[in-house]
Amino acid sequence: MACFQMGSCHAVPMTLFKNNRNKVCKAILDNSQESLKLSSGQLIILLEGGKDQSLYNTDVDYVFRQESYFQYMFGAKEPGCYGIVSIDVKTAQATSVLFVPRLPEEYETWMGALLKPEEFKAMYEVDEVYYVDELEAYLEKTTPKLILTLSGTNSDSGLTMQPPEFAGKDKYVTNCDLLYPIISECRVIKSKEEIEVLRYVAKVSSDAHIKVMQFIRPGRMEYEGESLFLHHAYAVGGCRHASYTCICGSGINSAILHYGHAGAPNNRPIQDGEMCLFDMGANYCGYAADITCSFPANGKFTEDQKFIYNAVLAARNAVMETARDGVSWVNMHKLAGKVLLEQLKAGGMLTGDVDEMLEAGVSGVFQPHGLGHLIGLDVHDVGGYLPTEPRRPSEAWLSKLRFARILKAGMYVTIEPGCYFIKQLMDKALADPQIRKYINVEVFERFRNFGGVRIEDDVLITKTGTENFAIVPRTVEEIEATMASK
Amino acid sequence: MACFQMGSCHAVPMTLFKNNRNKVCKAILDNSQESLKLSSGQLIILLEGGKDQSLYNTDVDYVFRQESYFQYMFGAKEPGCYGIVSIDVKTAQATSVLFVPRLPEEYETWMGALLKPEEFKAMYEVDEVYYVDELEAYLEKTTPKLILTLSGTNSDSGLTMQPPEFAGKDKYVTNCDLLYPIISECRVIKSKEEIEVLRYVAKVSSDAHIKVMQFIRPGRMEYEGESLFLHHAYAVGGCRHASYTCICGSGINSAILHYGHAGAPNNRPIQDGEMCLFDMGANYCGYAADITCSFPANGKFTEDQKFIYNAVLAARNAVMETARDGVSWVNMHKLAGKVLLEQLKAGGMLTGDVDEMLEAGVSGVFQPHGLGHLIGLDVHDVGGYLPTEPRRPSEAWLSKLRFARILKAGMYVTIEPGCYFIKQLMDKALADPQIRKYINVEVFERFRNFGGVRIEDDVLITKTGTENFAIVPRTVEEIEATMASK
Repeated sequence: MACFQMGSCHAVPMTLFKNNRNKVCKAILDNSQESLKLSSGQLIILLEGGKDQSLYNTDVDYVFRQESYFQYMFGAKEPGCYGIVSIDVKTAQATSVLFVPRLPEEYETWMGALLKPEEFKAMYEVDEVYYVDELEAYLEKTTPKLILTLSGTNSDSGLTMQPPEFAGKDKYVTNCDLLYPIISECRVIKSKEEIEVLRYVAKVSSDAHIKVMQFIRPGRMEYEGESLFLHHAYAVGGCRHASYTCICGSGINSAILHYGHAGAPNNRPIQDGEMCLFDMGANYCGYAADITCSFPANGKFTEDQKFIYNAVLAARNAVMETARDGVSWVNMHKLAGKVLLEQLKAGGMLTGDVDEMLEAGVSGVFQPHGLGHLIGLDVHDVGGYLPTEPRRPSEAWLSKLRFARILKAGMYVTIEPGCYFIKQLMDKALADPQIRKYINVEVFERFRNFGGVRIEDDVLITKTGTENFAIVPRTVEEIEATMASK
Repeated sequence: MACFQMGSCHAVPMTLFKNNRNKVCKAILDNSQESLKLSSGQLIILLEGGKDQSLYNTDVDYVFRQESYFQYMFGAKEPGCYGIVSIDVKTAQATSVLFVPRLPEEYETWMGALLKPEEFKAMYEVDEVYYVDELEAYLEKTTPKLILTLSGTNSDSGLTMQPPEFAGKDKYVTNCDLLYPIISECRVIKSKEEIEVLRYVAKVSSDAHIKVMQFIRPGRMEYEGESLFLHHAYAVGGCRHASYTCICGSGINSAILHYGHAGAPNNRPIQDGEMCLFDMGANYCGYAADITCSFPANGKFTEDQKFIYNAVLAARNAVMETARDGVSWVNMHKLAGKVLLEQLKAGGMLTGDVDEMLEAGVSGVFQPHGLGHLIGLDVHDVGGYLPTEPRRPSEAWLSKLRFARILKAGMYVTIEPGCYFIKQLMDKALADPQIRKYINVEVFERFRNFGGVRIEDDVLITKTGTENFAIVPRTVEEIEATMASK
């Protein structure tokens, strides 16, 4: 059985990708769109794989990562491929074809053995393999009635994928709009095999988080934690890539939601008495983890740290216990917000009616981001705002939600409530009488340089509830015990 | 004094970049090109910094790395900048101006505090800082007689950098050809401050190599070595980036010159009795190291391994003792080839006259690549084939040289002779009577699955010789002692 595997790490069977292809074919044939209702002939799905990406005009390339839709359908690790699934509409018979670059003989000297088409065929368990320069001839032979190509806009980035160019394109009827929402929806519900990869990469990431928690102490640099995470994920877990840039904030930096970028590169020494918020996730065979742990730098929570941490934990627990197939994600966001406000009220930071506060948007002062997002091949996975699904809410405190759907069994999401003390939002809240009236200013101000707490789990939605793949210490006691065992 | 620094790692003073700017200004004013001979008025150098690069259409960005020419002139770590050096031609007075993106207020919540222009000015020690949207107004105020922009083709990648677009460009006389060779030549000769950064990053990389050598043993995966290197370079050395994808070949993979790419991702278990060839270099503040260590997986050289290793070491030592200001790099390549052939002959693999063999291209059977390359901000640094310098040699065994210049004090180069047993080249050599006649086939064939050896140092050329910044065990005895001390 062919599979992707690093060392003795998780073996990802190539049937995962075959099953993905079959799922997409079925979704296309089941689709009610007029333009897809061919009565006979070949319907072709044509995807372009990712290309090597150079660092400016130098001859250094970024370490290649496959484009996610192509990975979903073919699982091929090489750049420069094309892939076709050719469907006989009458029989629903599908043929998978991978097109690989024809490399010059000299390539062998520099890059290693040139695999033959048969070898690629065995490695990826597709029906046929040709060279990219044979794509045109393949299409001529197949005479498809319709070629579906991929183009669409990512609802998180706003970036649009352009449809592929290929030789002979003008000779065929092509459509570049129909496929994107269909594959995207297929990607939303995870298969058994995908679930096992996601479980694996979440476990590796969890273990790496634990190593980091045990390593961190006052005086260490934030980036030392990032480096250790990446090392454990790769050396032990076989994960060459992180799913996103590591966020390793300490102290006030823990309130910067996307800390760790080039302008703020995890380069602060961690201080005694501070909170750390480390948001890091590995990537295996294209599949992502996205986990956040928040913990005290010195391993012991202060009373104030416990107050905020436990408020977030209560919000997280409430969602974890309520989310399941059929539940609205927007309601989960509201639930998390409500529990957070209740906790902050109980601790004396807020005063007044919690439902009123919620409607007034007070939870957005503390957690400006959405409760979580779909996750899969992309860390912010596709399928959030498909044409058939609820639109992005317009209310300010809901508008950052990355999806607003009814949860379905097989969805995989992050649940990541947080509570941050962000200067701009604090000042804005205090300047707005409609918000300020709920705030006990003295308590609120005590937390001005606190930073923030986020608890982020990677959760499979099931018929009856949730299954959490992030296996890290979560209670105050668990975290203190873990950090003491270093 | 403002500087770039990770933790307590090497502090790179911003005067490094100021001195680079001054050097470029002087080179422009000294230049004999007619078009640069303005008698008065402002001459402006306008550079565009690197931009964030997204992973396809997802909202994940690659970890940002600054474009090298921009780094050379401004040392700014943020994406999306422009930079100007405005020269009063009469007084030769230069003013440096950095233009930073004007980010929305909301950015603070997600990305951290918005630095004010004054803060950027202090951080990078430039004369003035404005927002990018003020570039047009700045130019209108300055009324330059000529704007030099950057465009040119990298002689290693063949990729061309396009000249920048900017608001109001049509209103000015611009030239996008003159600047590229001038800055490139400035980059070739390293300044004192650059030398200290290069020395630092080579030391960090050397230490990381030693850690890896001490860690590797039969049964470990190649990528575990890669991961450990990256971890040491980052956690200890503050190097967030590698200068290129790590090449971690064992056994037969050690003969694949650019092993480690996506199709061959350092994913083989290391076997007892094999050689390892690990080519890895960290990057600090944009500056590169590029070091290769070759060593036996089990820590003890066999006689055959000693034979090949010492042959390469002799070639390396010969070059290291001969290279200095005024010496031809092509002659150094020839010297390394000659010594290698002498050694292989002494060991019984070759027979006949060594000078004849060299002319016949026999050294290219064992080392198809050039002796080394310029190194600096880019691992294959610019300046190799500038218009004023010797062209790429046409002979097959010299044509892979990345430069063919006379060495000058202040150049920084890799010296990296190698000896590989590459199937294609072995078969081609045996099939060619003009080559085969020099080969003792039985001995040659004994090495068919040997892999290869490369010894790569990072070397500063001085008036009187060389200074090697790669501080790693190099003799058989040193390597065995290092690996025994794990």
